[in-house]
Amino acid sequence: MERMSKVSMHQQNSLHTSTVSPQARAAIKFQQPLCIWLTGLSGAGKSTLANALEVRLHEQGLHTCLLDGDNLRRGLCSDLGMTPEARNENIRRIAEVARLMVDAGLIVIVAAISPFRSDREAARKLFPEGRFLEVYVSTSFEVCAQRDPKGLYREARAGRLKNFTGVDSPYEAPLAPEGNIDTGELVLSEACERLWALVQRFP
Amino acid sequence: MERMSKVSMHQQNSLHTSTVSPQARAAIKFQQPLCIWLTGLSGAGKSTLANALEVRLHEQGLHTCLLDGDNLRRGLCSDLGMTPEARNENIRRIAEVARLMVDAGLIVIVAAISPFRSDREAARKLFPEGRFLEVYVSTSFEVCAQRDPKGLYREARAGRLKNFTGVDSPYEAPLAPEGNIDTGELVLSEACERLWALVQRFP
Repeated sequence: MERMSKVSMHQQNSLHTSTVSPQARAAIKFQQPLCIWLTGLSGAGKSTLANALEVRLHEQGLHTCLLDGDNLRRGLCSDLGMTPEARNENIRRIAEVARLMVDAGLIVIVAAISPFRSDREAARKLFPEGRFLEVYVSTSFEVCAQRDPKGLYREARAGRLKNFTGVDSPYEAPLAPEGNIDTGELVLSEACERLWALVQRFP
Repeated sequence: MERMSKVSMHQQNSLHTSTVSPQARAAIKFQQPLCIWLTGLSGAGKSTLANALEVRLHEQGLHTCLLDGDNLRRGLCSDLGMTPEARNENIRRIAEVARLMVDAGLIVIVAAISPFRSDREAARKLFPEGRFLEVYVSTSFEVCAQRDPKGLYREARAGRLKNFTGVDSPYEAPLAPEGNIDTGELVLSEACERLWALVQRFP
């Protein structure tokens, strides 16, 4: 049996340098990969919109995945807290994973508060031009705090939860997002339609 | 325009609770998701085998992605060093990302030294039974150090590179891997055939 020496390995490698490109991975899915990044306050409706969008894309036979900030904090980001530095790292990791998934040919939906403008801009830079859609789920603080689906606003306002976005940690609204959806002004079906129409512009 | 109050949001959500399941994401790809985890020393041939396997899977029309430890250290894991703790975290993140990709319906190939048995066992636990294939690329230290494709063994032996697996950091060989491939004993084409035959057993 021939041994694979340094030289023969190299020679063989040069015969087998083909790799599967991101374009090739996308091509067998008959779609253009895309990252749709939903940012906004806790309770703004990001996860609800993200889920509804994924269902609709999937119904069209498109290949998707959904990265939800809350879920990722139980897995990939389970070691991170809520300090500004930890939030930077949280968003950096989510963006890197979204990029890997876009490289895999998928349409990736991210739902994450992602409160800092610089973090979102750093995320955008990981993607090809025109393949990163920043969607500001701009539901107001008042509406989010009234909904308070997880009781977090109450906890934060009582001082029992630190570094909560909108209470004692800032939210920096996007300056020029690709889309803007206020679920305090729209019913869910209208909000979903608006998001769907937006995504359609990036085929 | 109707405002989406906490109650109406909840009511509407209950009308739209459908989400896209991992099974549904896999179904439109006509494949069973799988994680093929290649472990072994630096220079053992993991990346070469991983690339060749991905090309072959892709040629079959299967939906793949490749997570290469070296590449991830320039992105998702760029903040991590080579201490045992940093290696734990490195493998934890790779495993979490592989899990997200399996949830997205993909066949994921991981090529990472992943020297510690407990880290690989923790990775395995993230996947459904029978959907994690540990493949030991068992090329010997002597062969790897002789190949030394990046000059790292020379650096490590000279003491200029710390925590290098096989030199001053341990490699814990798998006890019961699903597969075993020694690229010092097989030529590349044979090694690829063996890996392909192994993967075929997990359709």
